Amino acid sequence: MDHPPSAAALVIGDEILSGKVEEANLAVLARTLRGLGVELRRVVVVKDNAETIAREVRDLSRTHDWLFTSGGVGPTHDDVTVEAVAQAFGVRVVSSPEMEAMLRAHYRERCTEGHLRMALIPEGAALEVTDEITWPTIRFENTWLLPGIPEVFRMKLPVVVARLRGGRAFVSRAVYVKMDEGVLKPLLDGVVAAHPEVAVGSYPKWFDASYKTKLTFDGLDEARVLAARDAFVALLPAGEPQKVE
Amino acid sequence: MDHPPSAAALVIGDEILSGKVEEANLAVLARTLRGLGVELRRVVVVKDNAETIAREVRDLSRTHDWLFTSGGVGPTHDDVTVEAVAQAFGVRVVSSPEMEAMLRAHYRERCTEGHLRMALIPEGAALEVTDEITWPTIRFENTWLLPGIPEVFRMKLPVVVARLRGGRAFVSRAVYVKMDEGVLKPLLDGVVAAHPEVAVGSYPKWFDASYKTKLTFDGLDEARVLAARDAFVALLPAGEPQKVE
Repeated sequence: MDHPPSAAALVIGDEILSGKVEEANLAVLARTLRGLGVELRRVVVVKDNAETIAREVRDLSRTHDWLFTSGGVGPTHDDVTVEAVAQAFGVRVVSSPEMEAMLRAHYRERCTEGHLRMALIPEGAALEVTDEITWPTIRFENTWLLPGIPEVFRMKLPVVVARLRGGRAFVSRAVYVKMDEGVLKPLLDGVVAAHPEVAVGSYPKWFDASYKTKLTFDGLDEARVLAARDAFVALLPAGEPQKVE
Repeated sequence: MDHPPSAAALVIGDEILSGKVEEANLAVLARTLRGLGVELRRVVVVKDNAETIAREVRDLSRTHDWLFTSGGVGPTHDDVTVEAVAQAFGVRVVSSPEMEAMLRAHYRERCTEGHLRMALIPEGAALEVTDEITWPTIRFENTWLLPGIPEVFRMKLPVVVARLRGGRAFVSRAVYVKMDEGVLKPLLDGVVAAHPEVAVGSYPKWFDASYKTKLTFDGLDEARVLAARDAFVALLPAGEPQKVE
C-alpha cells in the first residue's frame, strides 16, 4: 500500500481513565482524518500530568506527520496541556494578545485571571481559524490542541479539515456473510496474500441474525480495493454473501 | 495519596483507528478496575500488527501491575494478539489440549483448522475460568487477553473480578455548580493544595441548563474525600451548589 500521511492522537484526562466520562472524540477524529487521506496509527490516553503529556507529545509528534491532543485546555488546575506542549517543544508559555483581547471583550467586567488563562499558548504557536470558527485553535508545528468536551471537539474539526484538505481519501468496501471466522480463514488468507495493497479486516458480529461476519477491504486505490473484494466474493459458496457494499 | 495497584490497557484493532467501530470497552474496564481498587493509568490503541503489539505488551506489562489487552483473539489473519504476547514474553505459541478438546466438542464434524486456532495460547499461560464462565480467558503472568467484541468483553469481566477482588475501592464524590471554570479556579486551587491525597477534577458541561461545572473528589480514604469536598462547598457563594453527591 502507498504510504498516506500518518497521525497520532493523545487523549488527556483522569475522567476517561477512571471511567467517569466515556471517550467520545476518537471515532469522529478517525473518520475525519480518513476522509482527508490521513491514517490514524496510534492513540494514547494519559492522566492530567504535565510531565507525562510532554513526554508523549515529544514522542508522538516526532514519529507521526500530525498529532492531535484532546483535553486539558481549560483554565483549572487539571488543565495542563498548553504547559506540557510548550515543555515538549522547549518553548515558554506566553499570553496571546489576540486571544486575551477576545476574552476581555467576551467576559467584560466579569473577566477573571482564570478566564485569561485561556489566552495562554506555547510561544510561537499558530492560531488556526476559519471564517465561521473564529475562536482560535492552537497548533504548534504539527501538533493540534483540541478541547476534550465532545461538542466543542466536533465544532473545531472543520478548522483541521480546512488546513489538511487535499489528500487522497481512503476507499472502504465491505461484504457480509453468515459464515464464521473459522470457516472463512482459508478463503481470506488467499485474498490477503494476493492483494497486499488492500487491508482486509474480519469482524464477527454476535447477537445479530442478519449476518455473522463482516469483511472489510480498505485502500487508497479503488480498483485494487474492488478487485480484492470481488476475488473474495468469488470464493464464497452458494447462498453467500448476504450483502456487498 | 496511597498507591493503589496500577493497570494499563492495550486496545488492538485497525477498525478502532479507522473509526469504523467505536471503542466501547475502555469505560467499562475503567469502572470495573476502580471498583476493585485498581487504577487504570494508561491506554494505548494500536493496529493489528504483531511487532507493534509485542513491543507495547512488553513495555506496559513491565510498568504496571496489570495489563489488559482487548481485541485480536479470533481465528483470522488479523488476529495476532496471542502470537504478539508470546513474542513479548519470549515464549512459544502452543495449542492448549484443554481448549482444543472444548472446541472439538462444540463444533464436532464442522470443526476446521480455523476454529482450532482459537486453542492457541502463549506457552505457560494460565487459563482463567469461573463456575459460570467456563470458556477460558488467557492470562500470561500479569497480562490478560480479553476479546474486542463489546458483548463478549463484558461477559469476561467477572473472571477478572473474581481474580482481583479484595482491593480497597476508590471513593468518588461530586459537586455541581452554575459557576464557570474561570471563576472557580482560585477556589479550587486552595482546595487542591490543602488536600493532596484527593484528586480534584473540574468538568465544564456545555448545553445543559441545570449546571455549568461538575467538580469531582476522588481518593482511597472516604474521610479525606469528604473533607476536601466539604471544604470546597464551604467556599461557594449563596445559591450554590446546585447538587452535592
